[in-house]
Amino acid sequence: MTKNHLNSLPEWTHLAALAKRIALPENHLKYLIRQKHRLDNFSLSGGGLFFDFTRQRIDAQVLKSLLNLAKACKIKHRFNQMMTGELVNTTENRTALHTATRSFSHASVLNNGKDVMPDIKRIRDEIRQFSGDVHSGKISGANGQLFKDVVVIGIGGSYLGTEFVATALGSFSDKKIKLHFLSNVDIDNFGTIIDFIVPETTLWIVISKSYTTAETLANTSQVLSFLDQKGLDPKNHMVTVTSKGSPGDDPANPVLKSFHMFDYIGGRYSVTSAVGGVPLSLYLGFDRFKDFLKGAEEIDIHANTTSEEKNIPLVAALISVWNNNFLGYPSQAVIPYSSALSKLAAHIQQLSMESNGKSGESHGALSASMNGDGVDSHCGSIIFGEPGTNAQHSFFQLAHQGRPFPIEFIGVVNPYHQKYSGKSKGVTNHQELWANLMAQSQALAEGKDDKNAAKFFPGNRPSSTLLINDLSPKNIGRLLAFYEAKTVFEAFIWNINPFDQYGVELGKTMAGTIRSEIAEKNKNPDYQFDNRDSIQQFYLNVLFNHKIT
Amino acid sequence: MTKNHLNSLPEWTHLAALAKRIALPENHLKYLIRQKHRLDNFSLSGGGLFFDFTRQRIDAQVLKSLLNLAKACKIKHRFNQMMTGELVNTTENRTALHTATRSFSHASVLNNGKDVMPDIKRIRDEIRQFSGDVHSGKISGANGQLFKDVVVIGIGGSYLGTEFVATALGSFSDKKIKLHFLSNVDIDNFGTIIDFIVPETTLWIVISKSYTTAETLANTSQVLSFLDQKGLDPKNHMVTVTSKGSPGDDPANPVLKSFHMFDYIGGRYSVTSAVGGVPLSLYLGFDRFKDFLKGAEEIDIHANTTSEEKNIPLVAALISVWNNNFLGYPSQAVIPYSSALSKLAAHIQQLSMESNGKSGESHGALSASMNGDGVDSHCGSIIFGEPGTNAQHSFFQLAHQGRPFPIEFIGVVNPYHQKYSGKSKGVTNHQELWANLMAQSQALAEGKDDKNAAKFFPGNRPSSTLLINDLSPKNIGRLLAFYEAKTVFEAFIWNINPFDQYGVELGKTMAGTIRSEIAEKNKNPDYQFDNRDSIQQFYLNVLFNHKIT
Repeated sequence: MTKNHLNSLPEWTHLAALAKRIALPENHLKYLIRQKHRLDNFSLSGGGLFFDFTRQRIDAQVLKSLLNLAKACKIKHRFNQMMTGELVNTTENRTALHTATRSFSHASVLNNGKDVMPDIKRIRDEIRQFSGDVHSGKISGANGQLFKDVVVIGIGGSYLGTEFVATALGSFSDKKIKLHFLSNVDIDNFGTIIDFIVPETTLWIVISKSYTTAETLANTSQVLSFLDQKGLDPKNHMVTVTSKGSPGDDPANPVLKSFHMFDYIGGRYSVTSAVGGVPLSLYLGFDRFKDFLKGAEEIDIHANTTSEEKNIPLVAALISVWNNNFLGYPSQAVIPYSSALSKLAAHIQQLSMESNGKSGESHGALSASMNGDGVDSHCGSIIFGEPGTNAQHSFFQLAHQGRPFPIEFIGVVNPYHQKYSGKSKGVTNHQELWANLMAQSQALAEGKDDKNAAKFFPGNRPSSTLLINDLSPKNIGRLLAFYEAKTVFEAFIWNINPFDQYGVELGKTMAGTIRSEIAEKNKNPDYQFDNRDSIQQFYLNVLFNHKIT
Repeated sequence: MTKNHLNSLPEWTHLAALAKRIALPENHLKYLIRQKHRLDNFSLSGGGLFFDFTRQRIDAQVLKSLLNLAKACKIKHRFNQMMTGELVNTTENRTALHTATRSFSHASVLNNGKDVMPDIKRIRDEIRQFSGDVHSGKISGANGQLFKDVVVIGIGGSYLGTEFVATALGSFSDKKIKLHFLSNVDIDNFGTIIDFIVPETTLWIVISKSYTTAETLANTSQVLSFLDQKGLDPKNHMVTVTSKGSPGDDPANPVLKSFHMFDYIGGRYSVTSAVGGVPLSLYLGFDRFKDFLKGAEEIDIHANTTSEEKNIPLVAALISVWNNNFLGYPSQAVIPYSSALSKLAAHIQQLSMESNGKSGESHGALSASMNGDGVDSHCGSIIFGEPGTNAQHSFFQLAHQGRPFPIEFIGVVNPYHQKYSGKSKGVTNHQELWANLMAQSQALAEGKDDKNAAKFFPGNRPSSTLLINDLSPKNIGRLLAFYEAKTVFEAFIWNINPFDQYGVELGKTMAGTIRSEIAEKNKNPDYQFDNRDSIQQFYLNVLFNHKIT
């Protein structure tokens, strides 16, 4: 399949026609959910997950046509190509082998003809050994005391996934280690951490594949000055996660240890590599990290081997495409009914928007002419979210009565803290939470008539609900891999490359030019910003004058 | 002005015509920003803020027409009515006097004929006295030790604003008190806090105007059991912020102290009342809370007294309306280049989406027929955001090459932590941050041509930049009041009531029905859920079986 051909597929044209039919009043969700066997026909179970899409604006014919689209676009085949080392990252001429980082199979996985599994298993062993040595005290800070604080220096994909997993599994953190994230180049991010930690018992983990990320280098530079000032040596207090041979893996700049990562693992897909492995094993213990990997592996196998009809991330991806391109919803919320999953939306925001935020306009995969068919030419949604029930008391006013947007609810059958079982209004807190999870999807779908406009609920607002049994490491691994698989399945339909991110380059280039101007002025206080336009001159003068006017 | 008449205003029709002109290629932002005197004509300074809207897709004629619309809708007059106690919350027949909570003027403010200022000043005094007594140890926990942890029990407007301010001013927290938020009814929210605190030195603040919020009551009930189990008395460890005479202000359930709030203060506008005042004064000291109030007051006065042309929140609101209804952007990001402002977007998400997430469909303020003119009938945007530069490494791929959405950047001229001034690539961390702030708005506006679709940037993506001088309590107060004023100005244009939230009622009612079913089953294990449809029966059985299948 080549560019611009998606909208000429008969499956696509057929779906555009079905979208018009679904928009008719008789296909309002309040009627669709009352169809016989709705739950049996519009839910899937597998890989430890339960996925309920009864409240999506689809019927049997739409579902069948979406599955036909998946088959026409051969997305399962492409997923298998991804897992087996074909060059699916075409613009960067690379493989995308994040699934190998959680493989426990004995099969080899070839990257340009070379099996990656020996490297991956070696690094897993190194992480097991290193984290064990830190926990036992065999490796310790300058004064021989156990490490108490671990700070990850990394931005974007180098920390968002790890932050999600660490927050989700925080109740398991019994290693007496606190985990911090120094991501932002803002000096207040650094200052706040420095105010908190004790330097002698702090371990810094610098994470950057290329070791050229401006923010990470600037923060590492601050940390190195700080260590020097405290008389501490990076050989005892700093490790790196980086490509073999990068400036972060250079014997000229000795550190306690370097863990390797590889160009076949993209940042936003790297949680199961050393990027997540080193900090998460220190925080939770290696065994829990391994359970987490096993959960992820289970979903990879499910996604790779289950038929389209029963394939949970594949069907979820088809629903995204339906909502995005055919029903025209520009955004999607991720609402976990679990405070432990409070960082999930921020991770998915990156995973999904950086992978698939590529419109026809800039990528040509969907031609602009598709608008003529009433089909939206944009790929990728704006993703946002907060945990329920908090979200109900924040932005759900708009969800019910403002612009509609699809929601992915996530329910956790058993909470971590079971022992506090006091009741209010006859139910436990967890039961109250569950009642609200059930009520929101129902209210959004059904709506309510009222002559008073302020009390009228249009309904017909789609949602899915994904259930996991509990907050175990394995289930968090499943959740992570579900979203990764869903994201790449979407991209395979849209025929875009979910592994590059050229859209961030222009801002970086322009920041580099401005940085040079600032550096010049730092060297020469008489330097004037004559090369900049008047708006930029204003901002540069504000910076150097330390006040707005 | 009555319902449905907005789109028949000549100013509205004129703006719809101008929107078509702005869409022409020759009005691409890359040309607009090169207009002579662009910065002078499209920026405003006042009340300690600088607001730059040079990169919005407007020209002199659009700005003038928007100001004419503001005048036709008399929004400044309505703002004054709000501040002076007219019944602007029409659906609930109430005034909306949050501005009075930060007034230091001697003028009276009438609510139904009664001056509210004596109550407001009395409560401010009570907060000053109480927080001082806690800090000095005059008021202490059961064992006579100083309180070390303060937990706010409240959801939505009872904590989001406080969390934003506490995070923004965290570097000033020198009272040796940690602040926690127990918002979610999820028992894991409770359990995580209980695992952290020492009961004897913990003070609990229950915040609920009506004292009927299900989540807050359930959490309070857990806390009361916990205190009882530890042999601690709520008379020593719990305070309430609630309406006079509510169940939280009942001598039959004695607590350490009750602070009153009033029905003329809506939850999402309540940060400057006792809702924010009690926790923030404990965390930061009363003097800093007072400075914060004075900053907010300054913006209230600016919004109330400055002409439309120079009125920063008013012009910002007009730009929202322009982007929302005429240019058709469905969402808006709030991106502060400051990690201290990391909770701003979550607060604005509630403030804006709960106030103004009310479509023509449900509220009749804008008629559906407006779609016929190419004008979007929805009020209110989907608001989301993360701090920069983090957001650049997360979802800015989509911002540059996917669906366009307007961005409100926020810049802080001076960071809090000034002393770490090491340089990387010739610039300090703060200068690197500033270079990125400047570069992003420029890159989004200008774009870049490239024959390679993956490297083509369409540009023409609008943004504003709001600057504050530093992270002082006063500036955080200004920022808070700016967003409150902007939100109500938008509502006054749309002719909707930004003070009610009927859209959350349907979900509450449905949750109540489900809760009753669960409570019944708790009492009688043989109870069957025959009244529920098959989908709901499935979820209820999962809950009671403790597993998915």
